[in-house]
Amino acid sequence: MLTTVPSLSDIKRAHQRISGYITHTPVITSKNIDEIAGCNLFFKCENFQKVGAFKMRGASNAIFSYRPEERDKGFACHSSGNHGQAVSLASKLAGSRAYIIMPNNSSSVKVAAVKGYGAEVVLCEPNEKSREETCARVMEETGAILIHPFDDYNIIAGQATACKELLEEVDNLDSVITPVGGGGLAAGTALSAHYIEPKLDVYIGEPKEVDDAFNSLKAGRIIPNTSTNTIADGLKTTIGEKNFEILKEHVKEVFTVTEQEIIDAMKLIWERMKIVIEPSSAVAFASILKNPEVFEGKNVGVILTGGNVDLTRLPF
Amino acid sequence: MLTTVPSLSDIKRAHQRISGYITHTPVITSKNIDEIAGCNLFFKCENFQKVGAFKMRGASNAIFSYRPEERDKGFACHSSGNHGQAVSLASKLAGSRAYIIMPNNSSSVKVAAVKGYGAEVVLCEPNEKSREETCARVMEETGAILIHPFDDYNIIAGQATACKELLEEVDNLDSVITPVGGGGLAAGTALSAHYIEPKLDVYIGEPKEVDDAFNSLKAGRIIPNTSTNTIADGLKTTIGEKNFEILKEHVKEVFTVTEQEIIDAMKLIWERMKIVIEPSSAVAFASILKNPEVFEGKNVGVILTGGNVDLTRLPF
Repeated sequence: MLTTVPSLSDIKRAHQRISGYITHTPVITSKNIDEIAGCNLFFKCENFQKVGAFKMRGASNAIFSYRPEERDKGFACHSSGNHGQAVSLASKLAGSRAYIIMPNNSSSVKVAAVKGYGAEVVLCEPNEKSREETCARVMEETGAILIHPFDDYNIIAGQATACKELLEEVDNLDSVITPVGGGGLAAGTALSAHYIEPKLDVYIGEPKEVDDAFNSLKAGRIIPNTSTNTIADGLKTTIGEKNFEILKEHVKEVFTVTEQEIIDAMKLIWERMKIVIEPSSAVAFASILKNPEVFEGKNVGVILTGGNVDLTRLPF
Repeated sequence: MLTTVPSLSDIKRAHQRISGYITHTPVITSKNIDEIAGCNLFFKCENFQKVGAFKMRGASNAIFSYRPEERDKGFACHSSGNHGQAVSLASKLAGSRAYIIMPNNSSSVKVAAVKGYGAEVVLCEPNEKSREETCARVMEETGAILIHPFDDYNIIAGQATACKELLEEVDNLDSVITPVGGGGLAAGTALSAHYIEPKLDVYIGEPKEVDDAFNSLKAGRIIPNTSTNTIADGLKTTIGEKNFEILKEHVKEVFTVTEQEIIDAMKLIWERMKIVIEPSSAVAFASILKNPEVFEGKNVGVILTGGNVDLTRLPF
């Protein structure tokens, strides 16, 4: 298990470890979108990843980092979203079991998705205290190992493999951009860029409504979110400590975007590229559209983080 | 210009002719969808084609079949949909101009899309008489050449290239299925299958609400649609004569599906495959879901015809 910032070798080992369990997702381009954005965009499509999101990379790496004999009591996490599905599927693939703590107001679609991967769902009250107490109780009763969604070097090394694949496929990128929530993907991307293409500018984008990364990087210390009022439901969490230390070192700039900018960017990608992405995914592209002077004429890698949306509740 | 049923050489020549102007679209698969369908599906993604639909293949082939000196008066068609956009873009790429006759109740989005490709939009009353009169007048006034949307061997040879690419990429298919409207894609697919993999079973699917192909193939003569009441707006037309002759020869079975079956199949593809397809595209997949005994365990090629939908008016 990694206890320090992942090295390039750690990321390579993570990639080898998970390669049989994840999808090597395609990189796609669109002349039409490039004309609108005024730059050349290379979209790494983690919306096509297993469970529909990049989270499968980190969860697989964390779980398969345990030796088979360590896996027998299962894995636990609290998540109503993509991380919960990823831990469920990775646990199943590892021949183990998963306990997913979900708030009792989770949509039945999300509960069904987790159960569909064979996990046991444990409902809690929709607040942090109940969530942590429930999680602690489940771990004590079952002996399951906690898989943190982002503040964990094994998770970061797993998420880093998306950018690694992107850089192996596309030459001559000037910059790369991801959305930032807890910072697992953002930190992993920053590390892969730093090791593989050190000249690359690393940018991150987040909703203005949950601008903890923006405030934290400005202040030099973590400033937690006071609001979680965003459509980008994967980005509501405050950035993790391990993630923050990495981003502080390697990120050139944080952009913030409004809810309407997120929705407009999401719709544009659906319409022009004919792919389904979730609102969190659109935050990076929205940041590019909002800051054309930064990206003009550049070759920019964009990680599209996932495609899990409730089609009956679209914002447009 | 082709005046007889396209041969394999004609289709190969069409493919060479248009290859610089179309996208070589990917073939994608989904374990999740395969489990649901009970067979192995290979989706040829013409939703990623230029203008968002396979129509670009046929229109390009028809237009580029004219010598440069024959193109100077432009091209005309009547279409409120994908064919209009395809003729617009192909005319522009051919250094020519396009006149698209559209009903005056067309959505502003569709009119803007055609104009965006540089074509001139000529509005007519939303009935067949006005449409044909307007088209005849435009052709007389401008000398533009009519590009029929389906009942034309050059169009059929162009549409045949989608299945040709599919068969070049995927071995061991047992069958291939497309939706059928006017029959350009269906006839082209049937020809490519017949020439390249003669053992392949060719199936077509259409909405029960516009079941002219089903009735026509049963009767041995064209039975026009009496209703066009379907969400699959690309499939409202009655099958063409040239198309019918080809389908009569090479199609094993026609399936019909209800409106709800189309919507359910469309939603399933959006949700599980994270791609945007239009309702017409979902008809082939809906036919597979409805007839599991025909496809069980088989390797089936499915042409996803396009991805142009109004995201503000989705059926789910």
